[in-house]
Amino acid sequence: MKPLFITFEGIEGSGKSTQIKLLEAALTREGHACLSTREPGGPPISEDIRRILLNNEYIQMQPETELLLYMASRAQHTAQWIIPALEEGKIVLCDRYNDSTIAYQGAARNLDQDFISRLAAFATRSLEPDLTFLLDLSVEQGRSRIQNRQLDRMEKEAIAFHHKVRDQYLILAQSQSHRYIVIDGSMDESIIHQHILKHFHTRFLGE
Amino acid sequence: MKPLFITFEGIEGSGKSTQIKLLEAALTREGHACLSTREPGGPPISEDIRRILLNNEYIQMQPETELLLYMASRAQHTAQWIIPALEEGKIVLCDRYNDSTIAYQGAARNLDQDFISRLAAFATRSLEPDLTFLLDLSVEQGRSRIQNRQLDRMEKEAIAFHHKVRDQYLILAQSQSHRYIVIDGSMDESIIHQHILKHFHTRFLGE
Repeated sequence: MKPLFITFEGIEGSGKSTQIKLLEAALTREGHACLSTREPGGPPISEDIRRILLNNEYIQMQPETELLLYMASRAQHTAQWIIPALEEGKIVLCDRYNDSTIAYQGAARNLDQDFISRLAAFATRSLEPDLTFLLDLSVEQGRSRIQNRQLDRMEKEAIAFHHKVRDQYLILAQSQSHRYIVIDGSMDESIIHQHILKHFHTRFLGE
Repeated sequence: MKPLFITFEGIEGSGKSTQIKLLEAALTREGHACLSTREPGGPPISEDIRRILLNNEYIQMQPETELLLYMASRAQHTAQWIIPALEEGKIVLCDRYNDSTIAYQGAARNLDQDFISRLAAFATRSLEPDLTFLLDLSVEQGRSRIQNRQLDRMEKEAIAFHHKVRDQYLILAQSQSHRYIVIDGSMDESIIHQHILKHFHTRFLGE
């Protein structure tokens, strides 16, 4: 099998990290070598940038600063972890990638989406996912699932912000339909996992 | 007098910070309100990014990551400190700005200079300096002046890197001659200061 780059997108509380754990475990049992990772983050430089991005004290952070920090973190993550893992033949499972930036900084913060796309191409050497799972969930359901968490700077944004994010994800899923699979994120974890695994097998193993 | 944005450029050891201190003191004595600041840095978010940029342990930092971090730091610095200070009618003296990025990440790291310029326009809302002093110095003289410092990640780069930086500064001083003044950085501190003060008076006070 060729190396595969699979991303997971969705609003906070949509269950991305749970599904990545379940898929990684299943693929590992099937004998595939996997790297599972998340954004912003990955190698130490990217984690250090993540700490700035999610710091609740940084209420004065400008949208431009935020965008450039996400891209800096991604540039390092892609070059240092993702591309080398793909070159080693691994399946890379990544919690958020460029589409998060289009949704959060583009749609919700109202920065120019074409500029973001050019920036993304520069930062990632134009690396695109082979497959993207959108765990779609209403903003209200997402909020109720994360209400017991210590919320970070992005999670604390108002409800209207998260509606723009969700709506943009649905637009992306349509415009990039060749790589997007939309999953109803309100279903049980185990059911969602079965859907994801089935889509993976159908698409990449021809089953 | 209208608010003025004055930047200082040059290789490490060229005496920028000394000259900014001297000019700020002279302008303050003349009754001008000044903000003197430096890049990367300024407000807390930008200083936090500076810490990542200059960290000697981050030897795996990619040129793309570095460029995006400099621009993120500058976006915050410009919006939170420089533009508000100019709006209050202050003279802003800044140690490094976009031209440093053209010289270090463009010429020395070989990233696309047109892309850097577009990124700079986005990060700074197209804010350009009214005047730039280039403290020009040979790389050898610059190195000998900083040999007793604890060198940071950029200062540790090889001699060839710093030659590219100096050469690019001289190119910028020609192509942007409307705002550039090149000063021989090998002269005595007090002589350089007198030159800078005279240029300032001639240009902005019509003396």
